[in-house]
Order: sequence, then structure tokens, then C-alpha cells
Amino acid sequence: MGLARMAHRRSTLCSLSRCLTQPGLWSRGFASLPDPIGEEQGPINSKDGKVLHPELLNTNFVNAEYAVRGELYLKGEELRKQGKEIIFTNVGNPHALGQKPRTFNRQVMSLVTCPTLLDHPKVGELFPADVIARAKQCSTYFNGGLGAYTDSRGSEGVRKEVAAYIEKRDGYPSSPDQIFLTDGASPAVRYMLNAIIRNDKDGILVPVPQYPLYSASIQLLGGKLLGYYLREDSNWSMDIPSVKRQVAQARSEGIAVRGLVFINPGNPTGQCLSYDNLKDIIQFCQEEEIVLMADEVYQTNIYQDERPFVSCKKVMMDMGEPYSKHELLSFHTVSKGALGECGLRGGYVETTNIHPGTVDQIYKIASINLSPNTTGQLGMALMVNPPEEGSESYEQWKQEESSVMESLRRRAQIMTDGFNACEGVSCTFTEGAMYSFPRLDLPQKAVQAAKQAGKSPDTFYCLKLLEDTGILTVPGSGFGQEEGTLHLRTTILPMEEKIKEVMSLFQNFHKKFMDEYR
Amino acid sequence: MGLARMAHRRSTLCSLSRCLTQPGLWSRGFASLPDPIGEEQGPINSKDGKVLHPELLNTNFVNAEYAVRGELYLKGEELRKQGKEIIFTNVGNPHALGQKPRTFNRQVMSLVTCPTLLDHPKVGELFPADVIARAKQCSTYFNGGLGAYTDSRGSEGVRKEVAAYIEKRDGYPSSPDQIFLTDGASPAVRYMLNAIIRNDKDGILVPVPQYPLYSASIQLLGGKLLGYYLREDSNWSMDIPSVKRQVAQARSEGIAVRGLVFINPGNPTGQCLSYDNLKDIIQFCQEEEIVLMADEVYQTNIYQDERPFVSCKKVMMDMGEPYSKHELLSFHTVSKGALGECGLRGGYVETTNIHPGTVDQIYKIASINLSPNTTGQLGMALMVNPPEEGSESYEQWKQEESSVMESLRRRAQIMTDGFNACEGVSCTFTEGAMYSFPRLDLPQKAVQAAKQAGKSPDTFYCLKLLEDTGILTVPGSGFGQEEGTLHLRTTILPMEEKIKEVMSLFQNFHKKFMDEYR
Repeated sequence: MGLARMAHRRSTLCSLSRCLTQPGLWSRGFASLPDPIGEEQGPINSKDGKVLHPELLNTNFVNAEYAVRGELYLKGEELRKQGKEIIFTNVGNPHALGQKPRTFNRQVMSLVTCPTLLDHPKVGELFPADVIARAKQCSTYFNGGLGAYTDSRGSEGVRKEVAAYIEKRDGYPSSPDQIFLTDGASPAVRYMLNAIIRNDKDGILVPVPQYPLYSASIQLLGGKLLGYYLREDSNWSMDIPSVKRQVAQARSEGIAVRGLVFINPGNPTGQCLSYDNLKDIIQFCQEEEIVLMADEVYQTNIYQDERPFVSCKKVMMDMGEPYSKHELLSFHTVSKGALGECGLRGGYVETTNIHPGTVDQIYKIASINLSPNTTGQLGMALMVNPPEEGSESYEQWKQEESSVMESLRRRAQIMTDGFNACEGVSCTFTEGAMYSFPRLDLPQKAVQAAKQAGKSPDTFYCLKLLEDTGILTVPGSGFGQEEGTLHLRTTILPMEEKIKEVMSLFQNFHKKFMDEYR
Repeated sequence: MGLARMAHRRSTLCSLSRCLTQPGLWSRGFASLPDPIGEEQGPINSKDGKVLHPELLNTNFVNAEYAVRGELYLKGEELRKQGKEIIFTNVGNPHALGQKPRTFNRQVMSLVTCPTLLDHPKVGELFPADVIARAKQCSTYFNGGLGAYTDSRGSEGVRKEVAAYIEKRDGYPSSPDQIFLTDGASPAVRYMLNAIIRNDKDGILVPVPQYPLYSASIQLLGGKLLGYYLREDSNWSMDIPSVKRQVAQARSEGIAVRGLVFINPGNPTGQCLSYDNLKDIIQFCQEEEIVLMADEVYQTNIYQDERPFVSCKKVMMDMGEPYSKHELLSFHTVSKGALGECGLRGGYVETTNIHPGTVDQIYKIASINLSPNTTGQLGMALMVNPPEEGSESYEQWKQEESSVMESLRRRAQIMTDGFNACEGVSCTFTEGAMYSFPRLDLPQKAVQAAKQAGKSPDTFYCLKLLEDTGILTVPGSGFGQEEGTLHLRTTILPMEEKIKEVMSLFQNFHKKFMDEYR
């Protein structure tokens, strides 16, 4: 891409998404580099003897930023290697903070992994009968066992279990042929965006704040990120007028608005969208011909009773035609919920009302990668189809599952209350998902100090917090935030015996920080 | 991309790579679609009410083709669902054809997967002591167990074991910080190509024939595929003059030649490159500033003694400066070798002499995906560091390992001999990897019949073979082949008790085919 074209592209950024694209605000510790290739003078192939010189890489590759493992994470890792105790609340990774896996699930997995154990005469002495039965059943889903590639959409047996789960959840049909199993939800999102985005005139609506998988992937794929604001003063609900304004603005600039992403429950914002909010957005997207991308990976992480999770698909089907015929992509994962099996990398996308020719194309592209990993697929089967009530393992499974969920609910409250007790901090209640996203009202002196340090104020604050307490968070600028506001994201995942200590560490730091910069 | 620009791009195809780009030759059963967007009339966002209409997707997404799971595979799946027995020799997937996993490896994996089993008082009754010890050691590589995301480069403990393996293999240092663990080798290849390819003026040299991961990924990333021929008459060795011609031709068309891929042992061609052949290509790439991409996933699949595997890194280091400072990316996997753990999706890329700023960029992009799957990482640790001689599990492990390798060696011979016994078929010996790639000299009448059926002659032949015998192969056109030649690829993976039957099915079919079309 020539310099002239790049400059043109930069100038067409929508003002509403400016907060998502201002240099520095997304900073990950890697500087944005100049346009590495000028068509005018022909391609440059090496610098200082290196073909893969950082200034000669793919521009989108270089410019993509991902704050969750950005500057703060790298600093945290550095401190950890120096011997400092780091509390990793930068990423929703519950097992790393001590959460235990479900005993039943891992028992089944160990038997499917090791066929000689499943066939061992003493297996019944170590495993309950229902574990053994489920392992035998799951083994049939993998022709050749876990060591064989499955179909590139994933095992048909697992996809059938996923479809049954969706049907039971929503009360509407689901087909295993419309489901693609993937190595976590992230690759599923990328496949879909790759199909949708044709060039930098194709725009994807993404909430502000958002999970930076979206901004990074859209950048990597050379598309146009269109930010729409969530309303912090209304519990981070989707603000339809903001969406409409963004669509109108983008279209006036010649952008094709192709997709709208929403995250429910929200990341980093923790809100649970209401049924009516979902209805409004479906209606708008149907009328405006915009594909819905529903990131529902936190669907079982709900910490209030007023707004239980309802899937976008269910609302769409409830609405009847023409809405029930609208194009929808829904994402889910084994990494979240009470399960939190992040390391397995199991996810899926359900494609609803997508043109069969397009589903074929997605299937083809999935095939280049041959197969999602089988352990993640098995983990998915066990998540969507847990032990039945009355079965031998049910009570233990239920107790483990409930204790995680109940504790998360208490932790959501402890975190929110803790933040709200601080001077200049306000935090909406974490209704769902795994994060608190408190707003920080920092003194002018702190803003000045950040400027002098060459950091955005929230990055400055989070770095100080890390150095002082070992608490590793992510600055709000990594997710996008309304201009003039500052936030940070923390998970609510430190174990319950630990979380009060974390909060008190935070509060002491915050008081000190405010005293220093007030 | 406008129509004019597309047309320009199509017209600049290098003649040497024409065989890789002629319409139809790569056909996977999905038609190539017209340029879906014309900038002239502004972006079109929907057709027949669908935003994700197949004609309105990303062009590169639509045009990427992957024959290994292409038209033949889809037909095979269709026949299988109709009840026909299909012999899946289209993809190197040994466990699907009955190969068993290593007992030791799966025992360790089952214990790491299920911590309650590892801690069970009776565990010693079901598992040997060295399995338990190794499981305990491997557990320390995963902070939070297999359910936690690791560092996005993969667990440091596993990377250390990989580095130790490489050091032992080559006799040169390797650093865990230069290694990225991935969900199989395929994503590693894609990450690297994504960094390298900036636009359609960036060319990647790829062998003809090649494994279509490369052509598909280059297309998907919008780069320029530059085919160079392997010499069938010289056991598919790399033909340096062909590489040189291709580089000169590409440069004369304004293409920056950025990388050269080679596959050793070869896929689909089965050759083992000689030390001198490697030296020549390293010298050429160093002089011409072209990054080496060494696909060495079949490094332990060797079926002859004259040319043992030698890594590109070792040859490069042996050569001394300036060659030992050249940029190299080397790929490996748990899916191949005697292990064949395809389903685990474990792979790595070692980056040698790559600019640290570029390694940082790759690390950043890997972070968007958070973590490679942990089971694949564990599988990698066990592959690179098997039980030691003299340990309790060694004998069984060794016996299992050797029996697979010895059998593969016999099967390579059976396949090659079987093909060479057929009229009009000639097949170079499968020196390594998992494939035979016989050349077919088909009668003119068959070529005509194929033309009438709208198929390339090799596709026509492979479809007939599938329908008649259930043997699922991939036509040579899916890999690229010299104009006027025809081939097919089959794995040598059917179990030994089955492979003679497969070969006799093939021979009977071939005779019938030749009789019909002679």
C-alpha cells in the first residue's frame, strides 16, 4: 500500500471511533512503525541485512495491538522473573489463580486420552461407573481416538451434543452442520471476520469499550473498525442512537457496514444486556442489513437475577420473520463459565441463516488447518452435556460447579464495593462475565505526571499499581473508552480467600497515589 | 480491490508458476467467483438479502484452495454416509487408519489431565513409577494445570525441552525464547507468512509440487506464490536453476522475493534432500536475501539409509559465516513421525537469526490467540524427550516406536513397488514422509473423457478410483505438477495387514481403467 493511500485511509477515521485509533492509546509497548513499503519506489526487501526487519513486515501485523498481553503484561512478567509476586488479573484465566477443574470432566478426559487405562481391569477401582460409561461414549466421537484429525468442523458427535445444548437453551432447532468447533472462540471470530472483511472499505461495528481481540483482528485483516459507545451511565447498555450515528457516518464516507459485534455479558464492562436491548439491536441490524456477531462466551457467568442470560438467537427467533431469518454468528467457549478450561482451547461458532455457499467457504478455510484440537472438542462435549441429576457423579459435579459460581457472585460484589469505596473511583456492578471495569477520576497532577512519562494516564496508573502491589491489570485505553474518561480492567478471579487482600492492597495503593498526586 | 487491479494482478502471474494458478487445476469443488467488489461503483453490501453472500466475501478467502480436503474428500464423505467403505489415504492421519499412540505418552497425559488421579493412593497399581514421575515433572510446566492459558509462546518448560532436543539433534545452541509453540505446525506457518507478506508484490517461493497449506495461506494473505520445480527425474531434488529462474523472472516483474519454502522430507514427493542440495539452497538464499522456511515436520520419517535427515539449521551452522547468520524459520509437529498425534495439534517454529523486534511482533500476534492448547504442548514435551534407555517404560516405548517405523519402511516399499508394477505408472521411492506420488501416463481417450466431464485428467482418474474401490487419494493438480504430467498422492498409512489389499484394489482398478480407455 502506498504512502498516499495510507494517508487517505488514516484521514477517513470516524470521529466516534477516534478513541480506538488514537496513537498511543492502544500502546502495547511496540511502537507503531511507518508505512514499510512505498509502491512508488518499488518494494524494499531488506534493511541492515534483515528481510524480516521490523520495519519491513506486514503493516497490519505491526499495527495490530492487543493490550491484554501488552505493556503491562510484559512489565509484570519482567517483575515476576525478578522474584516479585504478581497477581495476574489481566486475563480471564481462572485456573492460573487456583480454580480447580471439574473432577468428573477431567476423569472422563483422562480415560479417553489413555485407552489402555480405560481397558484396564482395575479401572473401576479408581473411577465411578458413570465416568467410565461417558468416556466410552465420548471415545466413539473420535475415530482413531484423540490422536486423529477430526473433520475440520470438528467431530460430528461433539457437534450433535452442542446442537442439543443450544436447542435446550433456546427452545429452537440447531443443526450440527451449522456448527464449527474451533481452538477456542478467538479463532472462530477470526475465521468469520476474514470471510466478511474484503478491504479497508468494509466496516465492523464494535462496542467501546471492547475486548481487543476484535480491534486486533480487524486491523490484522485490513478492515475498518467502527466503534459504538456503550452507556456507562446506564450500566453499559448498548446505545442504539450511538450505533445509528456511527452507521450513518461510516456510510457517508463510503464504508460498507458489514457486521456488528456485541459481547453479552460484557467484556470488559460486565453488563448483562436486557431482552429489549437485544430486540432493538436485532431490529436495527435486520433493517440495515448488518450481520450480527454475538460474543456469548460468558453466557453462564451471571451474578444478578433481574436479567438472566438470553441468547441473541432466541430473541431473534422469538421476534419471528423477517428477524428470525437474519444472519447471525454466535460464539461460545470452554474457557469461561464455571468451567474456565482456558488451556484446552475449545470453542465453537454457530452460523444461523448464513448462505450455504458461505458455510461451504468457511468449511474450506477451516480445512486448511485440518482439525481443531481433540481435547478441546472433548472438553466442549463435557461442558454442554454434564452429568445428569441422579447419576453417581452428579452431586460432586454440582457442588463443584455451584461453589465456583456462588463464589464468583460474592467476588463480583466484593470487587465492585471495594472500588466504589475509593476516592474518585466509580464502578458499575459486575452483573456478569469475569471483570470489573472501574472508572478512575485522577487528579490533574497525575495526568501531568503521566504525560511527562510519555504514558496515557490510565497506563501510568496501572504501571504504578503493578510496581507497588504486584496487581496486574489492563488500562481502559486497551479496550477503548470515551474521551476524557479513564478506567482499568481487572478480573474478579483471585480466589475468595485472596480477593479481600487484593482489594485492600489496591485500596492502600490508591490512597497513596491520590495523596501523592492530589 | 477494483476490477482493473485484479486483472493486472492476474496478468502478472509468472509462467513458471502457471501450473499452480491455472483455473480448475486446484479445483476443490468450489468455483472461483468473480471479483466481488468494484471500487468504482462503491462497495456492494448484500445480494439476495444476504450480507454474507458467497459472491460478497473476501476474494482471497474465496479463491484459496485446499485440495487435501477438496472435491475428492467431499465426494468420499458423501459415499461414506451412503454406507461405502472409504480408505482415507488423502491425508496423513495415521491414527484414523489404526495406528496406536505410544502407551507411555498417553499414560503421562492422562495423569497430567486428571490431578485427582495423579494423587490417588492406588495410582501406582495402574501406572509405572517413571510414568508418575514424568507426569509430576510435566505438571510443573503448567501453572494452574492444563486448564490455564500458558504464555502465548507456550509453556517455558516445554520450550526448554524443545530447545534441548534441537541442540542434541544439531549440535548447535537453541534458545527457548526463539521458539513458539503452536496448535500444530500449520498455524505456525500462517503466523510467519502473515508477518512476511505485505501485499501482492511480495513473493514466496514454494516447491512444485507442494503441500497446499502454502498456496492456500499465501492466497489468503494476499501474497504472490512463486513456484519452483522439483526434479522428478532426480528423485524430486531441489532444482537450483529453476529457483534462480523464478527469482529472476519475479524480480523483473517488480516482485520482492521474501521467502523460500522447502519441505524435507518432501510432501507430497517423499524425497530426502541431500546435504549438498541443502547447502546450495542456503548459499543461494543467503546471497539473494531470501528468508528460509524449512518445513521439517517429517524429519523422523526416513525410509532409506543413504541420506539421513539433516536439519537446515545444522547445515547452515556447519557452513559458518555469513551463512550461519542467515534468517531461518524451522517447523516441526507432533502429528507426524512415528507418533502421528495429529489430533493433539501440537507444533512449533524455531526462529533463527530473526531480528528481535520481529520476534516481538510475532509474540504480540500470537498473544491475540492467548495460548496454544496445553495438551498439544504436553504432547510436544513427550515427543522431544521420550523415556530414557534403562527406564521402566523404555522397552515398551522403544518397541512401539520401532514397530511403527519399521512397518512404515516396509509399507513405503510395498506402495512404490505396487505402483511401478502398473502399466503407465512410475513412482519414485518414498524415501521419507508419509506419501507416494506416482506419475500417471493416461491414455488420450481418458484425457478426452475427463475433458468432457469438466475435470482435470488426474481428478477424473482419482474420482473413478474412489467410486470403484473406496480409495480416497488427492489428484496431483492439488499440489501443482509440471505441465503435461499427471500424478496422484496417497499416504502409505493403511496398516500393514491392509496395505497389500489396498494395493491390489488399486492395481485391479488401474488395469480396468486402462482397458477401458486404452
